[in-house]
Amino acid sequence: MEEKIREENNRSGQGKKTLGVVGLGLIGGSFVKSYEQAEDWRILGYDKDEKINQFALLAEDIDGILTEDNVDQCDLILLAVYPEAAVSWLREHADRIRKDAVVLDCCGVKENVCGPCFEIAREHGFTYAGGHPMAGRHYSGYKYATEKLFRGAPMVIVPEAYDDIALLANIKDLLEPAKFGSISVTTAGEHDKLIAFTSQLAHVVSNAYVKSPTAEGHEGFSAGSYRDLTRVAWLNEKMWSELFLDNRENLMAELDHLIGHLQEYRDALERKDREGLETLLADGARRKKEIDG
Amino acid sequence: MEEKIREENNRSGQGKKTLGVVGLGLIGGSFVKSYEQAEDWRILGYDKDEKINQFALLAEDIDGILTEDNVDQCDLILLAVYPEAAVSWLREHADRIRKDAVVLDCCGVKENVCGPCFEIAREHGFTYAGGHPMAGRHYSGYKYATEKLFRGAPMVIVPEAYDDIALLANIKDLLEPAKFGSISVTTAGEHDKLIAFTSQLAHVVSNAYVKSPTAEGHEGFSAGSYRDLTRVAWLNEKMWSELFLDNRENLMAELDHLIGHLQEYRDALERKDREGLETLLADGARRKKEIDG
Repeated sequence: MEEKIREENNRSGQGKKTLGVVGLGLIGGSFVKSYEQAEDWRILGYDKDEKINQFALLAEDIDGILTEDNVDQCDLILLAVYPEAAVSWLREHADRIRKDAVVLDCCGVKENVCGPCFEIAREHGFTYAGGHPMAGRHYSGYKYATEKLFRGAPMVIVPEAYDDIALLANIKDLLEPAKFGSISVTTAGEHDKLIAFTSQLAHVVSNAYVKSPTAEGHEGFSAGSYRDLTRVAWLNEKMWSELFLDNRENLMAELDHLIGHLQEYRDALERKDREGLETLLADGARRKKEIDG
Repeated sequence: MEEKIREENNRSGQGKKTLGVVGLGLIGGSFVKSYEQAEDWRILGYDKDEKINQFALLAEDIDGILTEDNVDQCDLILLAVYPEAAVSWLREHADRIRKDAVVLDCCGVKENVCGPCFEIAREHGFTYAGGHPMAGRHYSGYKYATEKLFRGAPMVIVPEAYDDIALLANIKDLLEPAKFGSISVTTAGEHDKLIAFTSQLAHVVSNAYVKSPTAEGHEGFSAGSYRDLTRVAWLNEKMWSELFLDNRENLMAELDHLIGHLQEYRDALERKDREGLETLLADGARRKKEIDG
């Protein structure tokens, strides 16, 4: 039966592989637009907003709407929705996914997504791995999606078995149209710990930074540090709240570290402790140099 | 006597104006290299490190070393040293500065510099205004100075009399070789308040951010937010300590605001308060949009 479906699929798609994208926001839309450039892929897409489906169809970005009836045509399925929604979609469609298909989610947290998804995939015999494309824009939505979003960007993969070389090679091939700059492999736990620091904390700090009463009228008063510090302040609060709460222990630990360190500089200023302030600043400068220098 | 000196100066410099630069670090060196491109300027420079003076002379970046004996040749003097050193230099050389000369400092704080310098200038009858070129690099020192540093960057001027249009027009002309993108005028107090927020706070936050134990091994885990948040972490601790302590009230107020706000997100996470977290994030996003959007 599986073989038959595949043959039909190959016939209808003239030997092309089929990509299914769940969620046509910035990330899902950018995958659609990347794969649309690749000749050996046909694309099925689905968004809960029917207007977006119709737009993507009319724009000929997708070849069809991804439905319960054609999920079984997909060689690769990308779940580009919020964490809870990604797990729900997979649970609801698991029995229609082909056993030789690969499913990747694109969520910004991995433990709360990979845990249930590994289980669903095991039960149903298809392959699932966590994925996190490290790319974004201030704006969200299909309108801002672009085939360039992932070009040169890092992609992080969380496989169930860390040493499954064949799977990783397969994922690398399947992701080729997105033109990621690098694909690295890690565990869900390590991913969430690192992402709390590199991305989530940065978003909280940016978002808090602009709340100073001095923020108005800053034009002409910055060589770029204000701009850099607040670049990601403008965010989608619903998505980030879900991501933050899914990773709250890690993010709280990062916030505690940062608040504690900021308090040290503040106390040195209070004491007019020039030597102490120099030591604090030299420590940070040395650490930055060691890590990125 | 003044007229006579000026005539001699004009003769030796073949009608050129003379720039004196005190301190050949990144900022002073970059002014030297900008003015060196302008044909109607001759340049005298001085650094407390005699090797730098000799290097700048040999490289023909400067036409001579600025000494007590030729200070009176300068039409424009730029004080590109730390705040205390700038005030000391001006006090020591005040009686040799021509009455028609303009002196600008280039320090990152203005109240502690402009206060004494306005007084010295008034006593001796020459013109002084505070200046803060909003440009920088990770690296300090003459070696990293470049004629491009100020191109397109904002320059802030703090004049004693806010409405002295002729003075401001004169300063604008005198600064032409640096090719600033904009020149704005403010008070020392307003400058220091804004700079505590746009620049000093950014440097403290960057410097504190990298101190997280998670900072190692972040490669491949950031779409640029980590890079932006920590860009200015690598700083010169001696210079920044002096600047911070010269502006400690403003910087402490900014740190208190930021720490207080960060604590709010932290507490919402602790309470698993999704609605509260969304409100905090939406507030920051709206503010960023209002200010810069």
